Amino acid sequence: MQIVILSGGSGTRLWPLSNDARSKQFLRLLSDPEGKPESMLQRLVRQLREAGINDNITVATSMAQRDAVAGQLKDVDILTEPSRRHTFPAIALATEYLTKVKHCDSNEIIVVLPCDPFTVSGYFEAIRRMVAGVQKDAAELILMGIAPTYPSSKYGYILPAPPTDLSVETGVSHVDRFIEKPSVEDAETLIGLGAVWNAGVFAFRLGFLNKLTSKYLNYNTFEEVVEHYDLLPHTSFDYEVLEKTENMGMVPFCGRWKDLGTWNTLTDEISCRNYGNVITDGTGENTHIFNELELPLVCIGTKDLVVAASPDGILVSEKSKSEDIKKLSPQLHHRPMFEERRWGIYRVIDQTKALDGHCSLTKRLTLNPGASISYQRHAHREEVWTFVDGEGEIVIGDERKPVKRGMTFIIPAGTMHALKAKTPLTFIEVQTGTPLIEEDIERFPYEW
Amino acid sequence: MQIVILSGGSGTRLWPLSNDARSKQFLRLLSDPEGKPESMLQRLVRQLREAGINDNITVATSMAQRDAVAGQLKDVDILTEPSRRHTFPAIALATEYLTKVKHCDSNEIIVVLPCDPFTVSGYFEAIRRMVAGVQKDAAELILMGIAPTYPSSKYGYILPAPPTDLSVETGVSHVDRFIEKPSVEDAETLIGLGAVWNAGVFAFRLGFLNKLTSKYLNYNTFEEVVEHYDLLPHTSFDYEVLEKTENMGMVPFCGRWKDLGTWNTLTDEISCRNYGNVITDGTGENTHIFNELELPLVCIGTKDLVVAASPDGILVSEKSKSEDIKKLSPQLHHRPMFEERRWGIYRVIDQTKALDGHCSLTKRLTLNPGASISYQRHAHREEVWTFVDGEGEIVIGDERKPVKRGMTFIIPAGTMHALKAKTPLTFIEVQTGTPLIEEDIERFPYEW
Repeated sequence: MQIVILSGGSGTRLWPLSNDARSKQFLRLLSDPEGKPESMLQRLVRQLREAGINDNITVATSMAQRDAVAGQLKDVDILTEPSRRHTFPAIALATEYLTKVKHCDSNEIIVVLPCDPFTVSGYFEAIRRMVAGVQKDAAELILMGIAPTYPSSKYGYILPAPPTDLSVETGVSHVDRFIEKPSVEDAETLIGLGAVWNAGVFAFRLGFLNKLTSKYLNYNTFEEVVEHYDLLPHTSFDYEVLEKTENMGMVPFCGRWKDLGTWNTLTDEISCRNYGNVITDGTGENTHIFNELELPLVCIGTKDLVVAASPDGILVSEKSKSEDIKKLSPQLHHRPMFEERRWGIYRVIDQTKALDGHCSLTKRLTLNPGASISYQRHAHREEVWTFVDGEGEIVIGDERKPVKRGMTFIIPAGTMHALKAKTPLTFIEVQTGTPLIEEDIERFPYEW
Repeated sequence: MQIVILSGGSGTRLWPLSNDARSKQFLRLLSDPEGKPESMLQRLVRQLREAGINDNITVATSMAQRDAVAGQLKDVDILTEPSRRHTFPAIALATEYLTKVKHCDSNEIIVVLPCDPFTVSGYFEAIRRMVAGVQKDAAELILMGIAPTYPSSKYGYILPAPPTDLSVETGVSHVDRFIEKPSVEDAETLIGLGAVWNAGVFAFRLGFLNKLTSKYLNYNTFEEVVEHYDLLPHTSFDYEVLEKTENMGMVPFCGRWKDLGTWNTLTDEISCRNYGNVITDGTGENTHIFNELELPLVCIGTKDLVVAASPDGILVSEKSKSEDIKKLSPQLHHRPMFEERRWGIYRVIDQTKALDGHCSLTKRLTLNPGASISYQRHAHREEVWTFVDGEGEIVIGDERKPVKRGMTFIIPAGTMHALKAKTPLTFIEVQTGTPLIEEDIERFPYEW
């Protein structure tokens, strides 16, 4: 069996803590059983293992989020989509990868999971029942159904067929119909008929999806599949597969299941009210405060608010209206000001732009011990690195030498450079150029 | 006649926009008649001039605020207190300065004004009546009285004597008694008896204060006075002078007069609700938002709040409770992260501290055209300057050369350096040292 976790999302609804590079599933705002900070993605993998599901995990993600996944999870395969598309192409890419790179058998069972529901152990028992259902060939594709709590128009609805001997024996109901995001009225009717929400958890044999994918792509190697990724339709798995499959089953799960995608729903699950450098006068009520900046955040007499500050911005929102941040997000789009990368973290601490387009960008970067950044050069920008803590090695041009705090290096445009940390290694980087282009970088391998 | 404006204050109640170097009177949050941003201090000087009071102005301030005064006001004398003390020593220093440096006659009339009341033209008419009263020798010391609006225990109360022919003729009532900050009950009684609030505006002949000062200090030169400034008692002018003077008069002013010292009172006078990079969804009510940071500040559905963000910190406060920031200020004390200096502005953009005390401090500085920073050296810290915009000249050691954007200079500890701007000149400075000490600086003159 193979687990595929879909880790995507644009991170607009939990702005400013989430951004394009750090979607909500990466925020370490939850607590593990020992009380240590844990992200939604880390929680999901921990829960899978605790439920005895020890199979191989492939995390399908975007280029922007690849480093964040690598920084948070060990012992998983990471599959990067060539471009950000929809759930059908993402799942098809994963199954092509499992077929062509991992050489999985077409009879192998695949379980696809979203990365972000906040749920409990019964959810993983339901997954095991779904897998058992596929093993017994109860259906070609088995979904997980969630007991609806209100007539939402945000979810897909699964209308199960009346029970049969087989469905009673296998615990898998046959699916009569799948209805994607109905109106509230239709949702009420559907709930009256016994419909359940589609949890976005799918179990099937690898060959099932290979057949569907072959309609669009038919190549021998995974490299070719990646190259022609854009041939896959930009549609959801629900639309492309669920609405077109006849032989579908459903396993219900009636326990705690919640989308922590908005500040309002997320803060309900977070017992600690103040994160980071926060000062209050003790008179606030029902206020959650998250401060990732170093400067102090003071709240006095606040009520029913979520306050969140990060290098990307500051949010002060009435909790019940916090979902409206999504509507404002077109006004907020700029480069991420903070990222977790495979080698460590960086934060943009200053930006300037002259009238004629000349720019500067100042960052503080910290490399983890043993980590290195690639051997690289920039055609148009100059960089000045001033080391403020730690030890490591720097390469400038062909010359390799030890580096420690107090040292400054000027790296002119066009000069090859690389860096490796021995201890945690922090430096201030000032980039200048006319203009500064994020993609102005060529990377080469370097043998440390 | 000589005007003395007292410009002090610690700036805790309008945190985070105000700090030790930038007290409330320097915040450009008000609007001049043309709608341009104006500070309380700038408004006061404009109003004096508009009222036809064109006499020389001396601003008495602290070392920390000297540059801020110089940056905001032209054509005033600035007098810096050797140490931050109370209003009596501050006023005594000013009168010694006027006597010994400006050689004013002991009969010259001095008007002392606080820098922060928000008031209207009638206030300046009252000042002219106070001056006329001193000219006619209606009293040795004439105060301004404000019609009380509630029995406050924050103010001093002036109880006028019953009217006489002289008081009717001069418009100056004789003062029967002065009562500093009574209880609310006593204040109620005093108001019933016709007492008024002390506005902190004083008019007297220079010789009057010279006599009082000579009890503590008797020197020939102003330099000696400065040297022995600490001999003056650390008390208020009210306590030291008002409570001990017999022949005191009062001129009433009954117009608009307000202390804009708290967020709650200040925002009442500010029609523009959003300053800086602020985004709202339009559903907020009675919320004022001030953002001096570059990152976006988003408010959704907020009600009766003041939200203020600066390099010093972020405040989110219920308006009516905003005065409580003062109670939290001991927890907030650190170096100012933003300052207006005589040469321009700087902002601290990053700070790091290693476990063994090694520190870095990264600033962005902008020099005004023509301005220069002094020829200086630091015994213990190294600085790296990377120029990101503008042109000027730099001196390192004995060498002087043109500087423009894209250039980087490493200034080792102990090396003399200076800088002068031709155009607005912006650079990123990274300081490193073990530890970094603010006072690690020796300044020398430089002939540009």
